Amino acid sequence: MTVARPDEVRRFNRSSLLRLLHTGGPATRAALAVELGLNRSTIKMLVDGLAEAGLVQEKVPRQARGAGRPSLLVLPQPQAAVVLAVYVQAEHAGIALVGFGGQILGRNSWNLHGRQRDPDEVITHVAESAAMLAGDLGLHPVAAGVSVPGVVRRNDGLVHNAANLSWGEVALGERMTAVLNVPVTVGNDAEFGALAEHLRGAGRGGGDAVFVSADVGVGGGLIAQGSLLRGSAGYLGEIGHMTVRPGGRVCHCGNEGCWETEVGDAALCRALGLPEHVPRGAIVAELRALQEDCAELGEYLDWLTLGLVNVVNILGPELIVLGDLFTALPDAAVTRVREQVRRRSMVSRALGGVRIEKSRLGADLKLLGAAEAAFEGVLGVL
Amino acid sequence: MTVARPDEVRRFNRSSLLRLLHTGGPATRAALAVELGLNRSTIKMLVDGLAEAGLVQEKVPRQARGAGRPSLLVLPQPQAAVVLAVYVQAEHAGIALVGFGGQILGRNSWNLHGRQRDPDEVITHVAESAAMLAGDLGLHPVAAGVSVPGVVRRNDGLVHNAANLSWGEVALGERMTAVLNVPVTVGNDAEFGALAEHLRGAGRGGGDAVFVSADVGVGGGLIAQGSLLRGSAGYLGEIGHMTVRPGGRVCHCGNEGCWETEVGDAALCRALGLPEHVPRGAIVAELRALQEDCAELGEYLDWLTLGLVNVVNILGPELIVLGDLFTALPDAAVTRVREQVRRRSMVSRALGGVRIEKSRLGADLKLLGAAEAAFEGVLGVL
Repeated sequence: MTVARPDEVRRFNRSSLLRLLHTGGPATRAALAVELGLNRSTIKMLVDGLAEAGLVQEKVPRQARGAGRPSLLVLPQPQAAVVLAVYVQAEHAGIALVGFGGQILGRNSWNLHGRQRDPDEVITHVAESAAMLAGDLGLHPVAAGVSVPGVVRRNDGLVHNAANLSWGEVALGERMTAVLNVPVTVGNDAEFGALAEHLRGAGRGGGDAVFVSADVGVGGGLIAQGSLLRGSAGYLGEIGHMTVRPGGRVCHCGNEGCWETEVGDAALCRALGLPEHVPRGAIVAELRALQEDCAELGEYLDWLTLGLVNVVNILGPELIVLGDLFTALPDAAVTRVREQVRRRSMVSRALGGVRIEKSRLGADLKLLGAAEAAFEGVLGVL
Repeated sequence: MTVARPDEVRRFNRSSLLRLLHTGGPATRAALAVELGLNRSTIKMLVDGLAEAGLVQEKVPRQARGAGRPSLLVLPQPQAAVVLAVYVQAEHAGIALVGFGGQILGRNSWNLHGRQRDPDEVITHVAESAAMLAGDLGLHPVAAGVSVPGVVRRNDGLVHNAANLSWGEVALGERMTAVLNVPVTVGNDAEFGALAEHLRGAGRGGGDAVFVSADVGVGGGLIAQGSLLRGSAGYLGEIGHMTVRPGGRVCHCGNEGCWETEVGDAALCRALGLPEHVPRGAIVAELRALQEDCAELGEYLDWLTLGLVNVVNILGPELIVLGDLFTALPDAAVTRVREQVRRRSMVSRALGGVRIEKSRLGADLKLLGAAEAAFEGVLGVL
């Protein structure tokens, strides 16, 4: 139980204001006052403080509405607080420097083959690449977020298991902190995807959402009552290992008929008559060439539907965002899944229909999510 | 985003203290100060205020430790704030008056047959019975919580569907409020069960727990990061309608192979060779008579395990509490399920083993949960 003291109120208001500018973008003093429920003089005092610290600039808006003096526009200054965002995937890795307000200020990425996928190599390459990028741009990141496709303990960034990287028990949080010299938050990629969708994507402003994505694996992240769920000790996101087909194919996790084995990229290849694990481009091309009825995808979509019905019945979200490989599904296929889920889920029927949408944050999703995880610890202390 | 103002701090501290006394029971001023992170003079001021309002009494503890003046013991006064707890089940209904601190001060229950199960009849009987009980005890409940086995919209207490009562679209929250004349919170019984376990049972002090219970239906409630999850619009708890056996038996919800059809009371009867829907006592007697190896339950336990593996993989709880009919399972059966879930769930392996326990709150679980739901709105304004 935390107890607010009078001397904490100002700091709380300041970080609320920073968070609002960071996720909402430029806004007038008047709008900020309304949004935070503060009076104009308090807002003035807080904004003046932020301007003095170089975190915001103020401008007279171009188009002033109404009579009277126009309310000043407050703009977050991206360079004033910068974090390092990192993602690691089976085939490649990348970094970006992301500024206050969420803008990507610079980036770099590279392929991972064979030995390059070893944790040692990845850590070294990230550190070198980050130092070079920061030097080139003259920026100094104050925190880092690292997205990994695996089971991650959020408390300390231990990667318990990342099957698609062949990593097990890697103390990634500790080791990254040592080489980067800033606080590091390591998380599961789908969990960070959920965070990005919640703050900057389809889930913006909403309370309860589930983000589900397919690549080699299938993962998920949950937003409940406006916050990212973490599970106990920070483990979460193994939604891909929900059993949907008892007695089905054996999964690398040791169980049978996991959702991942039925709707991951290998399953999609099988449905499309492609060899398993062809490059992503070939899968996408094949999906684009499908007829309107998507007949080839029939059974694949049934398994996708079944897993989503379970997610809706268990969690009752208002929104499901489909990410990564799922975004390449034809719209007709998504429409069919949406209708089936609405019809077959009790909870969706009670809600009057859950929203199911493709992610529109594109390739930057993982970087944006990792950046937001890093900013979580930063905005309160700027 | 809520912003704390200096004048709200005292009220916040007061309600934190009330909550601590309510769930933790009697404690010394010194212990309360440590727990809330407040200094002794603030605690004194707050406790004096509560004593003046009749909410607590102070006593010199019998066994004072150490030298110095002993810290006064602060005792919640049950009669000072009383709520009405109500549960409705397929076969019976009941009410209780529950005091500040969680003590049941009086109760009444009755069977439901035929027309008695109609919403009108239930509402009338609850109101009459509550008025009589309150009159007998000379108490005045200030809020009410109502537990229903169905899909409930928490925001306004609309019962969308309670199949086992044959209820559909009953505005129970509104109608109960009208007859009881106090604020009413209506919720799903498993959701309230989770709340009771979190505040007064096996989940006490923990952060992430799932409560799963079987009666005619199978339901669940989720505690995440110390709070009860509500889902969007307050719908949640239809974990029993997770599909575990595609192509399995048809469920009343319209789907096939729901967890409820595989582990609800009818499934347990089938496993035990009993006719479906025999009285609860017959099922319990049959379970008690099982051999140590529980061979008859083999397949039943496999489906129970499968659903729990899914719950653990999706939500990553540290604790699962099994309620209602599940508490009648032999300990050897629960041990077997626990071992299987730990072995087969990736997330449990990462966590080093999820705890799986039977509820020990007994028959009062639903009443305690409904009371806590009612107290949620009360403790902040006492």
